[in-house]
Amino acid sequence: MEKSIQLPKGYQAAGVACGIKKNGKRDLALILSDKPAIAAGVFTKNVVKGHSVKWTMKQIANPVQAIAINSGNANACAGPEGDADTEHFAGLAASLLGCQKEQVLLGSTGVIGYRLPMDKIEAGLQEAFVQLSTEGAANAIEAIMTTDTFPKLVSMKIELSGKTASIFGMAKGSGMIHPNMATMISVLLTDAAISKELLQKALSATVDKSFNRVSVDGDTSVCDKVLLLANGFAGNPEITCEGSDYSAFVEGLEYVSGSLSKMLAKDGEGATKLVEVKVKHAPDSEIAHTIANAISKSPLVKTALFGQDANWGRILTAAGYSGADFNPDTVDVWIGDLLMCKNGTGLRFDEEKALSILKKNEILITVDLKAGNVEDTMWTCDFSYDYVKINGSYRT
Amino acid sequence: MEKSIQLPKGYQAAGVACGIKKNGKRDLALILSDKPAIAAGVFTKNVVKGHSVKWTMKQIANPVQAIAINSGNANACAGPEGDADTEHFAGLAASLLGCQKEQVLLGSTGVIGYRLPMDKIEAGLQEAFVQLSTEGAANAIEAIMTTDTFPKLVSMKIELSGKTASIFGMAKGSGMIHPNMATMISVLLTDAAISKELLQKALSATVDKSFNRVSVDGDTSVCDKVLLLANGFAGNPEITCEGSDYSAFVEGLEYVSGSLSKMLAKDGEGATKLVEVKVKHAPDSEIAHTIANAISKSPLVKTALFGQDANWGRILTAAGYSGADFNPDTVDVWIGDLLMCKNGTGLRFDEEKALSILKKNEILITVDLKAGNVEDTMWTCDFSYDYVKINGSYRT
Repeated sequence: MEKSIQLPKGYQAAGVACGIKKNGKRDLALILSDKPAIAAGVFTKNVVKGHSVKWTMKQIANPVQAIAINSGNANACAGPEGDADTEHFAGLAASLLGCQKEQVLLGSTGVIGYRLPMDKIEAGLQEAFVQLSTEGAANAIEAIMTTDTFPKLVSMKIELSGKTASIFGMAKGSGMIHPNMATMISVLLTDAAISKELLQKALSATVDKSFNRVSVDGDTSVCDKVLLLANGFAGNPEITCEGSDYSAFVEGLEYVSGSLSKMLAKDGEGATKLVEVKVKHAPDSEIAHTIANAISKSPLVKTALFGQDANWGRILTAAGYSGADFNPDTVDVWIGDLLMCKNGTGLRFDEEKALSILKKNEILITVDLKAGNVEDTMWTCDFSYDYVKINGSYRT
Repeated sequence: MEKSIQLPKGYQAAGVACGIKKNGKRDLALILSDKPAIAAGVFTKNVVKGHSVKWTMKQIANPVQAIAINSGNANACAGPEGDADTEHFAGLAASLLGCQKEQVLLGSTGVIGYRLPMDKIEAGLQEAFVQLSTEGAANAIEAIMTTDTFPKLVSMKIELSGKTASIFGMAKGSGMIHPNMATMISVLLTDAAISKELLQKALSATVDKSFNRVSVDGDTSVCDKVLLLANGFAGNPEITCEGSDYSAFVEGLEYVSGSLSKMLAKDGEGATKLVEVKVKHAPDSEIAHTIANAISKSPLVKTALFGQDANWGRILTAAGYSGADFNPDTVDVWIGDLLMCKNGTGLRFDEEKALSILKKNEILITVDLKAGNVEDTMWTCDFSYDYVKINGSYRT
């Protein structure tokens, strides 16, 4: 699988600093498809939804020409003026690009409860329009980052009936991240030709296995979304049924989404470690997922991992209060390849070896229920002083 | 209401250091009722239960002579030997006190997965037996503390048909605390005479309004319990029906339990503030509680409070992802007496005044749904560097 950060054919991007972020960093991204693309989306399940999210949920049905995303302001809870600003935002982009405002999807991420600075947005869109380029991905991702410490970009090529297509993805985290929502902002772009129905189906299935398997802090934002555009520039015969081309497309999408998801967990606010939580041999998928989820969001498990403390009791405790019904007397708990608890009973283990495992940047936690054949995996991170520092002073 | 830390009539207590805690602090408490008391209990709902919890759940039906609780070792997940040690623990206390081992309730709190050091327990029980005294409450509470920074003791007097009875309570926190379990170890003692059935009824109802309304970190332990003994020494006519004496008893129990609960939240691991979360005007109690619960456990809300950042957007966000169905467009959010969000829309508020509210040790968060007449209150704390520090190195 070839990796690079090239945009697929027929897309241009730009990212500029227009003054929404106080620190002067890039804060407005513009992505253009050279012809209207079909679009799919997965959106936050939070009852409270930002104005940009509400706009995009409505327009996702349309042929989409562009996506504009600002950081530094969530464009949420700003009242009726927030909705008017949002429509104006789309309208400004549309006039520059020569399309309908209903063909512009929007995203916003940042602080809640403030109106967008429309003068800055207007100037920023003009500059971004000028800078649009097939090489613009790196600037675009920078412009949607908030507390991310590194940009998350992935792309790969797939073969579709003899034609080479490309799938590109970019994502921003890195706090307020938890499943059952789209959990962050991610933009996926492909030049494959595929029907709208299958595009949405592929996206929904993929999100469940990737973005919905990341937990940073159990919080979920009002702005989260994953958008996927397909513009057909690859020239493959349009994918209209679930044959081998569809499978290849889904496989590629899963690779891109899975890679971005692991990067999001690794770059969780204040994180020093990527933690994979695997629940094995569960009787059904709900039990497996409920347990993996509780472990992934337990502050006590996550602070112990930060402290490199092999406190497996907290892992079993989190499983126990998850709400899943299981027999604790058959459970094994592993950290890395070290068995710490067998059949619900603590073992004397090699503390030196445990420390060497816990010192690594990537840690695997395995809970083996020995009660079936279903497995679930989640990605999370440890919980550090820096999480508290970052989130104690985010707004001000 | 008179407050002191006197034990009720007919009880003695002791707390000694027997070497289970590495730091040499008190780690074994013994509480004796001068005659067998009737007992009630509420226990952790964690699927994984410690050996002491399992023992006590079985013996709570008996007339109870004593309670022995150790700290420094959770007596959990220690295998069949753990069950044998537990029975031995009760047996050692019973021989000293001249009762049956089935009349001794046990509690243990600390690290999971290690067998109790029975030689230390044995020596400690002997010393505690010698030290039993009507003045022993302060030592007993010290002996069950783990990361608590101050002892939590409350007592009050009530009138029951002309006789004065007393209700005493002690509790330890201070991490791994969240509702739907008993959420910590608390021992409540009364010299009132009351039927076993009403004693359990009064305790269950009270726990729901007090201990089950405290959240420190969303984690819940395998050892949590609230025990209540009643030995009848007050000489009141036994309470056998839900008349005025029962009401007075419940009121007293609620006062003691509520006071302890607020102390537990205030002394949450690393906490610098006691936070009361009130959800008002909800259509039903489930919606009110679901929202209060999500706000109380949100790491993003709690870190913002630590940082004295009036980030009300996170409060509304937590309400939004709580799972409760509500209309965000009618919601008001207050921090203290400052309205920050009206009808789901952010207001420009006085940042100076917000800071002066957030600098206080006790903070009230109010979410007004304006959709009914039901209210729910929870107590939590902020999330600080020290929470991470305490929990990053707890076991080692």
